[in-house]
Amino acid sequence: MTTAAKRVAVLSPVAWRTPPRQYGAWETVASNVTEGLAARGWDVTLFATSDSSTRGRLHAVVPHGYEEDRTIDPKVAEYLHISEAFEHASEFDLIHSHYDFMALCYTRLVKTPVLTTIHGFSSPKIMPVYDKYRDSYFVSISDSDRAPGLNYLGTVYNGIDLSLYPLRERPGNDLVFLGRIHPDKGVHLAIEVAQLSGLPLQIAGIVQDEGYFREQVEPHLNSRIRYIGPVDVAGKNKLFAGACALLHLNTIPERFGLVLVEANAAGVPVIAMDLGSCREVLQDGVTGFLVKNARAAAQCLRRLPEIDGAACRRRVEQFFSVEAMVKAYEHVYQKIFDLEAEKKR
Amino acid sequence: MTTAAKRVAVLSPVAWRTPPRQYGAWETVASNVTEGLAARGWDVTLFATSDSSTRGRLHAVVPHGYEEDRTIDPKVAEYLHISEAFEHASEFDLIHSHYDFMALCYTRLVKTPVLTTIHGFSSPKIMPVYDKYRDSYFVSISDSDRAPGLNYLGTVYNGIDLSLYPLRERPGNDLVFLGRIHPDKGVHLAIEVAQLSGLPLQIAGIVQDEGYFREQVEPHLNSRIRYIGPVDVAGKNKLFAGACALLHLNTIPERFGLVLVEANAAGVPVIAMDLGSCREVLQDGVTGFLVKNARAAAQCLRRLPEIDGAACRRRVEQFFSVEAMVKAYEHVYQKIFDLEAEKKR
Repeated sequence: MTTAAKRVAVLSPVAWRTPPRQYGAWETVASNVTEGLAARGWDVTLFATSDSSTRGRLHAVVPHGYEEDRTIDPKVAEYLHISEAFEHASEFDLIHSHYDFMALCYTRLVKTPVLTTIHGFSSPKIMPVYDKYRDSYFVSISDSDRAPGLNYLGTVYNGIDLSLYPLRERPGNDLVFLGRIHPDKGVHLAIEVAQLSGLPLQIAGIVQDEGYFREQVEPHLNSRIRYIGPVDVAGKNKLFAGACALLHLNTIPERFGLVLVEANAAGVPVIAMDLGSCREVLQDGVTGFLVKNARAAAQCLRRLPEIDGAACRRRVEQFFSVEAMVKAYEHVYQKIFDLEAEKKR
Repeated sequence: MTTAAKRVAVLSPVAWRTPPRQYGAWETVASNVTEGLAARGWDVTLFATSDSSTRGRLHAVVPHGYEEDRTIDPKVAEYLHISEAFEHASEFDLIHSHYDFMALCYTRLVKTPVLTTIHGFSSPKIMPVYDKYRDSYFVSISDSDRAPGLNYLGTVYNGIDLSLYPLRERPGNDLVFLGRIHPDKGVHLAIEVAQLSGLPLQIAGIVQDEGYFREQVEPHLNSRIRYIGPVDVAGKNKLFAGACALLHLNTIPERFGLVLVEANAAGVPVIAMDLGSCREVLQDGVTGFLVKNARAAAQCLRRLPEIDGAACRRRVEQFFSVEAMVKAYEHVYQKIFDLEAEKKR
């Protein structure tokens, strides 16, 4: 493949900087795709906030993430950012969008093909847009997170930079919850497991649902069950170092589950709800356990010694590294270039 | 001018149906432009909700106004609607947008010229978009509501359908407030005038600021000062029939003030704050009075007999009718066609 000749634009969201300082899964993946492509010799331009960083070219019109700078109107930032990328479409052979349904609405106004990685369907109300543009090019981030009728060219699992999450030396004693504080993420179920097992629980992440935090998390906090706020990569590694397991008891189907992979990379077993993509990301009994409820999760804890941390990391290296992801995307890009060449014939 | 050969698309908002059932100033103006152009022989297509009505062609992808149907996501409706219009840009010689900064972000992706009527700058945060697209074509709805540096081709006052607001036979006894219940519109000042004068006050309009209504309007309601909710055209005429004056004591600069014109058309004098466009819309001492505060407004009431209802209507016929507005827009359209023809030479 003559990658060097092809120019790719990666359209990242502008909620956060790319890569994000802490929370921001979509920006993390967009960054990993960009850096992975650059490392493999692609001519890649990242459309992201001005304070973003990349080994590729940065093209930016929004100074900061709108979640990080309240003087910025999210709608204004979004319109300025997406339209800017499409105004430069003719400079690229492919636009790889991580910007959901909004960017789709520009795709028919340019000649450059657009690939959309669907990081999740946030609401049934957005489906009319996907339906209109169903013949566009799509990638799902797990086989389970697909909408019928869309022109999927494949599933590409999210990949992480393994150097950020070194294998820890030995298992710790804490249960760890890492994610948004939101009922979807089952923080209350993690608390239930801590209460059933008597093990300490560290809860980290941004509070996305204030009412849920106040009613179902805060009342249970004590010296053993602690909420420590959002954490960066160093903070995650510190949590992994002290962890016996990551609890990921999501109450709705998971779309991918980046944190499962990060924990596994560090050698931490994951106990996850068997909903959505968790079955694809974890290998039951090898990198963690898939469960149906909090009681089953608590019962798994005695089986944790069966899990080999090094085996967890090996599976991440094989399937969920930046390199694996970028190679899979190169395969999808080539499909698009072939399809476009065919159209022109 | 060979209007028949030119194809114009009018892009209306999709917050409400076009024309709106009750509230919806932008949709009202977009409708009046469309119907006025159609009446004068233009080939005109209205982009609006599916339940809209027009003598021109209707092109619609959003079933109902998102303010009227809570199953519709405003952002989704907006993206689907605006992009649809621009995807059809090549079918038109001109797109006349009433869709604020959002539509501007599509203008560089099509060859068709776009004229934007700026119905108001809702926040300083949207100015970066206007700044980027400052060389686009703009019309202001009053001389006072202009941002520096934009490529204005002129001011075109909003026009109303005078047949909807017949001249009432004789003045009534009520003070009338008509508009959104919001501090910007000075409902509290209208109440102050009613209290100072002892005259009855009818308050009509949608409650946009619940807290303001609860704290500064509701406590003053009684048998003399009444809130009657939003009203349609028939409801407005009923209010005009019983009115001695319309009170429009806006606390921020008015952008145009459609209701001032509607009241004047019915022969109702308007007492308005001397802020923004009110000085352009009203002729002080002839169609109403411009004042600085509620006390001055109350003092004007004894001068109401000086105002001749027929003279009020004549001024509306001359400057604020649909015909006057459409002729002014035709003039602007021709400027654009000339400028575009020059570019191609």
